[in-house]
Amino acid sequence: MSADIRDHGGNIDLAMARFGGCPAEWIDLSTGINRVPYPLPSLPPEAWTALPTRTAQSRLLQVARANYRSDAPMLAVAGAQAAIQMIPRLGKASTAKVLSPTYNEHAAALRAAGWGVEDVGSLSALEGADLAVLVNPNNPDGRTYDPAALLQLTRKVGRLVVDESFADAVPTISIASGAGMAGLVVLRSFGKFYGLAGLRLGFVLGARDDITALAEMAGPWPVSGPALAVGTLALADQAWVQATIDRLRADTARIDALAAKSGWGLVGGTALFRLYDTPDAGAAQAGLARDRIWSRTFPFSSRWVRLGLPGTSAEWQRLADALQSQLPRT
Amino acid sequence: MSADIRDHGGNIDLAMARFGGCPAEWIDLSTGINRVPYPLPSLPPEAWTALPTRTAQSRLLQVARANYRSDAPMLAVAGAQAAIQMIPRLGKASTAKVLSPTYNEHAAALRAAGWGVEDVGSLSALEGADLAVLVNPNNPDGRTYDPAALLQLTRKVGRLVVDESFADAVPTISIASGAGMAGLVVLRSFGKFYGLAGLRLGFVLGARDDITALAEMAGPWPVSGPALAVGTLALADQAWVQATIDRLRADTARIDALAAKSGWGLVGGTALFRLYDTPDAGAAQAGLARDRIWSRTFPFSSRWVRLGLPGTSAEWQRLADALQSQLPRT
Repeated sequence: MSADIRDHGGNIDLAMARFGGCPAEWIDLSTGINRVPYPLPSLPPEAWTALPTRTAQSRLLQVARANYRSDAPMLAVAGAQAAIQMIPRLGKASTAKVLSPTYNEHAAALRAAGWGVEDVGSLSALEGADLAVLVNPNNPDGRTYDPAALLQLTRKVGRLVVDESFADAVPTISIASGAGMAGLVVLRSFGKFYGLAGLRLGFVLGARDDITALAEMAGPWPVSGPALAVGTLALADQAWVQATIDRLRADTARIDALAAKSGWGLVGGTALFRLYDTPDAGAAQAGLARDRIWSRTFPFSSRWVRLGLPGTSAEWQRLADALQSQLPRT
Repeated sequence: MSADIRDHGGNIDLAMARFGGCPAEWIDLSTGINRVPYPLPSLPPEAWTALPTRTAQSRLLQVARANYRSDAPMLAVAGAQAAIQMIPRLGKASTAKVLSPTYNEHAAALRAAGWGVEDVGSLSALEGADLAVLVNPNNPDGRTYDPAALLQLTRKVGRLVVDESFADAVPTISIASGAGMAGLVVLRSFGKFYGLAGLRLGFVLGARDDITALAEMAGPWPVSGPALAVGTLALADQAWVQATIDRLRADTARIDALAAKSGWGLVGGTALFRLYDTPDAGAAQAGLARDRIWSRTFPFSSRWVRLGLPGTSAEWQRLADALQSQLPRT
């Protein structure tokens, strides 16, 4: 299976190929990336010109540890995806269990590295696995899992990977403070909550041996200078974090109300995306696309549509109008 | 072996730990990174906020193919180092031969992935290897190899990796136009010649199957949005390339003349760094460090000092003064 043919959100070029338009015309709600990004600081020239130093990497990890409330061994990588690519090599390939449906790159990376992958539907069904993977809160349905239950589960599997890519707005469900124990690997994403997915920045927290092995796989300069500089400032800015959590809480209520008016039922979601049950996912996506709003559908569901949250007032108005025109004409 | 303990250039924080000073005081000549970088363009907001698109990745590869004069299958990665991390997994680990001395990360990444590594001293000694690695032109001594000889060598080894990280100024020695043949893997670096090492951008050219396998290892978004945007502009700017080649030719003659006045003999070099034979490498490094100029020494040589090229006039003057004070006091 090639990386080219897996479906993802954020594929706005595919939207344009199918429905036309130029990038500036589209509102991309096909991802869970915050559309009100952390304001870009001006960067020192060395962030661009010099090889990233150990000092810059350590400084980033220091603020990340405070932000994630963890003193576990930690590695900064070029996006949570970079960790997903490496994790299959932490142990000998056998059979992994993935709590599904979820972000499809976990299973894909495991299969590419020679693992068998079994999709399971409940936390307890992960027990006994050599490698168990879950996303908390889950993408696309927003299911959450209690950290205490996950710590117990860690003892019942060979290795547990908890992908917390969408946990920034709900720090109480994070297991990061428990990271460091043998067999537990926790992933954090920077780009989604901070709205800077192009930077490619993420973190892995885990037991010393696992983090050492991942650092060896990642090499000496896995994170770019701009990502180190921006991440270090953003992760230390607790005022922005709290204001963003508050805004996202109001915005999720707002988008759910708009969707309800179109008769779309909420399946679940997180602070950064909402999953709706629609009469026909393909028709809903095409309908929104006529108004240049790109949404996410799923190969395994004919009814689910996932929407990220608009950013500006103009984007909100366009989404409201587009959802309005989704109503069956009477 | 941990990535933390291998020695590299660019470790200016180590220089400060040993000799003091703050970053602004130091001139880092410990790398082969061009100190007159490609001028940073202003970037569109999407370069930071959005997931890199397939379209942006394809556009970068298109200009890279023109720049490297190759229509071979090609993958953009987060620096040539990212390719070095993945190449050991293209085949089953056995014994690799590395044309030495050279950039130490090749052997390190191979060993970390379970390979045995044999250092050899000549091109012909690579013959018969399951995996053979060479750097052309070589780091640190500037040795070059004829592309025709390398194409012949490809047929006599399981897989040949040619690292052309320092080939931008000498395009006639590049084997990139021959890439695509089975068993040949060519690496290119963006950050060194363009002076933007913090961006993390590099390329791998090779046979279709190898590039597909590397793309699967790298995952869907291996290169950041800023790297895609800057790389696409810079690699298309042939006027800057030619002006930079001309400037570097003059500058290498200038630094060699300065070194000669201090009695340092030229061992070899490239357009981006020069390797000198000195009476005592440790003393030479410490002497330059007193003037806040950081140089590269090598664990395997007590006499070799490698210097990158200064950028501004003020940097040239400081290097001239510092080298002058290297002369034995009479």
